Order: sequence, then C-alpha cells, then structure tokens
Amino acid sequence: MYKLGIDLGGTNIAAGIVDENYSVIAKYSMPTLLPDTPKNIVGRIMDASYKALKRANLSVDDISSVGIGSPGAVDSNKGIVLFANNLNFRNVDLGGMLSEKFGKKVYCENDANAAAFGEYLVTGSKEDTLVAITIGTGIGGGIIIDGKIYSGNRYSGGELGHMVINFEGIKCSCGRRGCFEAYASANALIGQTKEAMQKNLNSAMWSLCNGNINDVTGKTAFDGLKIGDATAKQVVEKYADYVSIGLVDIINTIGPSKICISGGISNEGEYILEPIRRHIELNRPINCQTSVYVAKLGNDAGIVGAANLDISR
Amino acid sequence: MYKLGIDLGGTNIAAGIVDENYSVIAKYSMPTLLPDTPKNIVGRIMDASYKALKRANLSVDDISSVGIGSPGAVDSNKGIVLFANNLNFRNVDLGGMLSEKFGKKVYCENDANAAAFGEYLVTGSKEDTLVAITIGTGIGGGIIIDGKIYSGNRYSGGELGHMVINFEGIKCSCGRRGCFEAYASANALIGQTKEAMQKNLNSAMWSLCNGNINDVTGKTAFDGLKIGDATAKQVVEKYADYVSIGLVDIINTIGPSKICISGGISNEGEYILEPIRRHIELNRPINCQTSVYVAKLGNDAGIVGAANLDISR
Repeated sequence: MYKLGIDLGGTNIAAGIVDENYSVIAKYSMPTLLPDTPKNIVGRIMDASYKALKRANLSVDDISSVGIGSPGAVDSNKGIVLFANNLNFRNVDLGGMLSEKFGKKVYCENDANAAAFGEYLVTGSKEDTLVAITIGTGIGGGIIIDGKIYSGNRYSGGELGHMVINFEGIKCSCGRRGCFEAYASANALIGQTKEAMQKNLNSAMWSLCNGNINDVTGKTAFDGLKIGDATAKQVVEKYADYVSIGLVDIINTIGPSKICISGGISNEGEYILEPIRRHIELNRPINCQTSVYVAKLGNDAGIVGAANLDISR
Repeated sequence: MYKLGIDLGGTNIAAGIVDENYSVIAKYSMPTLLPDTPKNIVGRIMDASYKALKRANLSVDDISSVGIGSPGAVDSNKGIVLFANNLNFRNVDLGGMLSEKFGKKVYCENDANAAAFGEYLVTGSKEDTLVAITIGTGIGGGIIIDGKIYSGNRYSGGELGHMVINFEGIKCSCGRRGCFEAYASANALIGQTKEAMQKNLNSAMWSLCNGNINDVTGKTAFDGLKIGDATAKQVVEKYADYVSIGLVDIINTIGPSKICISGGISNEGEYILEPIRRHIELNRPINCQTSVYVAKLGNDAGIVGAANLDISR
C-alpha cells in the first residue's frame, strides 16, 4: 500500500508517493504562486497530487493515507492552519478542504514537524528522542518523543530558532536580541562571512566570489576552508560554535538521543559536523550521549513525514 | 492505602507518609551527615522512614509504594544513582539497597524530577506539559509530559539551569559562560543585590541588612521593593527579566502549558510572578499560553512525588 505526502511551502508545492520503506517512488512539484487564496492553493495541491499519482501509475484508491505539512502553527488535531505568515493563512481548514477533494481524511501538520517525523522514520527508533533542526534563512525545529510528534502547548513548542543564546547580543528578525537563528542560520553565516572578508582583503574567499561580496553564499566559507584559507577556517569554526551553543541548549533542556541537521549547511557534512561534535563533547551534560548527524532524506523529509502522519500522534 | 516518599538531600533526609489526596500526613527529617558511606546513609534513610511511619501509627505493611528522590543522575529504570557529586555517589544501587531493607520495591528518581511529579499531581492534568523549576543555589528542573516524568537521553535532560542565555556573559560554576543559573539563581540575585547596593549607598537595603553587606539574602531586594526603595525595585525588575529569558527559552523549546516555580524566591509570590508574566507576554511565541505560578507543595513536593513514583513512568 502507498501513501501520499504533500510538502506545502511558500515557494513550491511538492507531492510524493511514498512506499512502505519510506522511499519516494514518484514526485511532482509546482510553484505555490503566492499571494493567492486558500481555495486556489488547494486546487494546485490537488493538481500536484494527481500528477504524482499518475507518475506512479496509481489512483487515489491505492493510497492508504494522505498528509500535508504546512508552514506556520497548525492544529494537527483539527487539521487547521491557525496562522502561516508567508501563506497569509488565518484559521484555514486545510485538512477539511483537502479531505473533501480526496474523499478521505487528510492529516495536517507543521512542516518542520512533518520533516522531523520523516527523518525519525528512517533514522530513529521508538526509544529515541529525536530533534530535527533545519538551518536555512531561519532555523526551524521538530521534536519526536516516544515515536510521536511532540509540539507542546497549543502547537507552539519546537521554536528552536528563537531560543535566546545571547540576550545582550545582536537583533533577531523577531525583534528580540540574541536568538539562536540570529547567529546560526545560513543568513547569519553569510553576514559573518562578509564581515570577515571585509576585515581580510587577502582572503581567498574574495576570488571565490569573483571579488563581488554580494555573491557570498552559505557555501563560501566552507569552500574557502577546503582550499586552505585561514580566514574562512576562522569563520567556519566560529559559526560551528554558534550552532553548537544552541544544540547544547537543546541537549540541556530536551536531552535528545539524536539531533539531525538539515538545510543547505548540512551538505557540508563532516566540515560542519566535526567542529560541532568537538564543541558539544566539551560542553554537554556529563551523562548525555547525543549523536549529531546530517538528515538522510534531505528535501524529501517533508513528503515522507507528511505521508505517514497517520502514525505520528 | 498510604505511600512513603523520601527526599534525600545533601543536608537533610526527609521521609513522609502520603495519602491518596497527596497530603503528607506525617513526616520525619534528620541530617544526612555527609561525608558518609552509602550504607550508613541508607541506615539513616531507614531510620527516618520508620520514625515517619511511627508518627502516622502505620507499619510497612500499610504502605503500597515506596520511592526516593536523590540528587544527581539517576537511572530510574534500574534504581541506580549513576553519580551525585554532593553525596559522592558513583553507581550506587540505592533502589536495591532500600528494597532489601523494606522487603518491597523502592522506586528511585532524580530529586528535581520527583518534585516536579509531585507538583504535577496536585496542579496538573494529563493534557499538560509541566515544567517545574527550583530556584535555589542553582536552578534545577523537572519535566512532565503526558502524565509521566520525561528525562531525556540517559537521564540527562531537564538541566535547565545550564541553558546558555548569554554566551558572552558571566562565568557559571560549571565553567561555561552565561548559563541561566549564573543570572537567575538565588545566589545570582544576592550578587546583583550587593552590586546595586555598592553603587547606591543611599539605598534602604543597607538598613535592611544593618549596614552589613554580608547579610544580604535573596529576600533583601524584595524587602526593599516592598518599602519603596528605587534601587531594590530596579534589582528585582532586572532579576525577573533574567528569570524570564530562561523561561521564554523553555517555552520556545519545550512549549509547556504550565511552569511551576519553587525555591525561596517563589515565596515572594506576585512580587516575582507579575514582572515575569509581563516579560513573557511580550516575548512568548504568538500561539503559546503558558501559565506561570508558584509551586503549591513547597518543600513537600519531593516527598509527594517520591511516594508516587510507582505511577510516574
């Protein structure tokens, strides 16, 4: 039996058919095309879903469960998106609208939670507490405890990007000072890279971006490190420290057995994992043995998790 | 039917008889007398327990469950204290030793977890996620999820005092910089009070401690506030901010529905709760409605929780 998972984002809608081994056997993506009404977006979600089904040579009757991950605060019990800023959704009954179209129950969940559940299915076991963090423009998080998605009071937990790690520090987009994501998001790394380059005009990173500082990305410092640039090495080391401070806070509060990192930065593999593990080893609670690794499913985590939301609560 | 709960501390051993309404009907305390061997400490635990039973006119046969809360990392599954610095315990089979003496199973748990469970029993419901923090020399924490004690990987979660809230900040006793307890413990408040007094020689707090700065306690700033001293008001306001930063971090990660505060500072009631609630209201995730209140059981929380450890996992 197959399941259908939908990853609704501000840029793209991705629908995928998932088999019992958590493999995506067919997938279809299309632009979300914002701003638009919930009704029209639901129309495109159906379009993407049927095209994915067609690619897999399946019909809706072959699907045992349908689920969707949406940005924002989602009441997964009622299937309602309470609010999602980028979609401009307020109390949208996404589950209800989709259930009517599909003729079967559609599970709804916050997208980071769905992705965390997908990673849990392929890398975790029921004894694990797994925290999945996605490092992108901001930092998102999902928590799996006892084999189930944990989302705290009124679906508001797991806001890991807005833990304050430096209350006298730099301003975050949320208005507070010193949030984790103000130091450890990909955007923050880009800022840190630019700052270091401006102070070190001889850094090889300048040639990596053809002398144009606006071409700096989250990869630049890692690329510089790989060709032996000392400034790049310092940037990565400092950035890994920032990431690690947040991870140690997560360890001190939630005490997960596994932390799984996704997002563009995670593509750097050991270049980012090694300094993180070193920092955590020095700063973790004495008894804790949390393993930190790169997400296995990458961009498919949201689809795999959404498809399996029927077993997530 | 009655239960027996034991709160083992670095200073005192308290044993109490708890009825089905979570009331302590009889209690006996005696000094722990450290340093001493586990065997001798177990002897005093038994002594305190039998004296508490005698005060209640009960025998061991009237007791349906026995539990103990111990400082340190406790493997509650095996009943072993993995390590407890202040007791100088390493892999002590406290549960086994006590079970043999009592002739029945004795449950073991970390003391902060046991106290959190006690508070949960009297102020929580199964739908709650409850975080109990104890503000004393340091800051301890216990987490109750889905009606059960949650302690993370290898019993290492809930180390709430060592979340870093200011990584460029002041040194903590653990060696790291900017831990929650370095700013928000009772000890930290005493330091903040002294510093403010030294800068404000006209503060009424000087007369509250008879001109002797060594007499400053965690109460001094609150006492000053109550008689209208401006410096004391600033100290309390700033201190409440520090406490709140940690609580908002707990809200952003764990998203509890309830946060219960115990320890000496909590005796100040609304004088500490009101500024905390104000800060949280400004800084919480938009969807979260966490209630913050003072622990109901006070010093008895550890006994009540320990007595009920049979239903805590």
